[in-house]
Amino acid sequence: MKQVDVCFSPDLIHQYDISDHNVVVIDILRATSCMVAGLGSGVQSITPVATVEECEALGAKGYVMAGERGGQKLPQFDLGNSPFEYMKPEWKGKKIATTTTNGTRCIELSKGAPEITIGAFLNLSALVEHLQTKEENVLLFCAAWKGKFNLEDSLFAGAVCSLLKKDFEMVSDAAKSAFYLHQSMSEDIEYYISRSNHASRLSGFQAQEDIGYCAKIDEFDIVPMLKGDELVV
Amino acid sequence: MKQVDVCFSPDLIHQYDISDHNVVVIDILRATSCMVAGLGSGVQSITPVATVEECEALGAKGYVMAGERGGQKLPQFDLGNSPFEYMKPEWKGKKIATTTTNGTRCIELSKGAPEITIGAFLNLSALVEHLQTKEENVLLFCAAWKGKFNLEDSLFAGAVCSLLKKDFEMVSDAAKSAFYLHQSMSEDIEYYISRSNHASRLSGFQAQEDIGYCAKIDEFDIVPMLKGDELVV
Repeated sequence: MKQVDVCFSPDLIHQYDISDHNVVVIDILRATSCMVAGLGSGVQSITPVATVEECEALGAKGYVMAGERGGQKLPQFDLGNSPFEYMKPEWKGKKIATTTTNGTRCIELSKGAPEITIGAFLNLSALVEHLQTKEENVLLFCAAWKGKFNLEDSLFAGAVCSLLKKDFEMVSDAAKSAFYLHQSMSEDIEYYISRSNHASRLSGFQAQEDIGYCAKIDEFDIVPMLKGDELVV
Repeated sequence: MKQVDVCFSPDLIHQYDISDHNVVVIDILRATSCMVAGLGSGVQSITPVATVEECEALGAKGYVMAGERGGQKLPQFDLGNSPFEYMKPEWKGKKIATTTTNGTRCIELSKGAPEITIGAFLNLSALVEHLQTKEENVLLFCAAWKGKFNLEDSLFAGAVCSLLKKDFEMVSDAAKSAFYLHQSMSEDIEYYISRSNHASRLSGFQAQEDIGYCAKIDEFDIVPMLKGDELVV
């Protein structure tokens, strides 16, 4: 039986052998939700980078520049960190470069895995179906927040475990706990995410809209995958 | 309002400021359960050490020597790692030196905290009442297993959060998740602990007896506390 495991933080990834796991990177608020929303709305590719400077260097080559610092879109950038911005028709067919601290760190740390995909509630079923077709074990890698365990990513990992349970063994206490956490919260995902630490750091109407959208399930039937330095469908 | 936080692994402790938190070290299977059982049964003190050599050095000074390697009591030692062994009348008034890898590591990493106490289901209510009388914030520090998240320690942290909730704010997603995990499992703690990774590593009749005992609540009305290098009541 294939195995599914969960890593709650980049600070714990050294405990896992990623070389024989397909890794799913999870950063629900909001990096991986934005990636799914953008690529599901016709964006050609998304290149995650760690710094503003790397983003600007790609911007100089014609990439659309995305990202925030301290919750604010940078003035020289084209879009911030809201899934609604990623879905605008004007980005169809365009390449986006995006700065995300936690998400980019996880993608970097996942290199060496047979496959790196992107997970969010927005593409939950498509992701699960994809993982079921593969031979490899699966590691669900929560981006967390500055290394700290977070609720929304763990909850999503639990949702995936729940759907994979028939074909995959939940191999660790981390996987089982994510599963039970999701079981206890599955009736109202949005409510629990809205009570997370990250949600309380976001404020204002747009952020509340974003949280509600990031909790929506199966808006897109795509699985973003890393090819070289780019995420594509 | 005072705050309660949870650290799921020694590999995450760098994220916390222990200097202003009373730290509770948790290693349910079986180090902290043994400590509570022993000190609650009249053992004078328990000195946790990392290595067999340190334990033997204390043994040479008259300490009772306790500990296991690979699940087996060492032949030169007086007792292994079962709470029942710690409760034997022959250890009343004696000093025990014990080797525990995960537990000792946590105690070392907690030095600098205003107070270091020992938590187990066996002394849950006494611990909670003690924490309520103190002014400081609380950090529940799960010993985990070789740094890996474990179910039984996290579940106990959630039990403490649940009882502290009236007077303490659950300040992080880790605390909230431990709380919800406990909520979803509180009806049958022993069942869930028996399905943990650690339980499946333990085998045989004695281990099953130990697990059942380590899931018992409030067998002892004591709070072991670190004084110098010794745990005492």
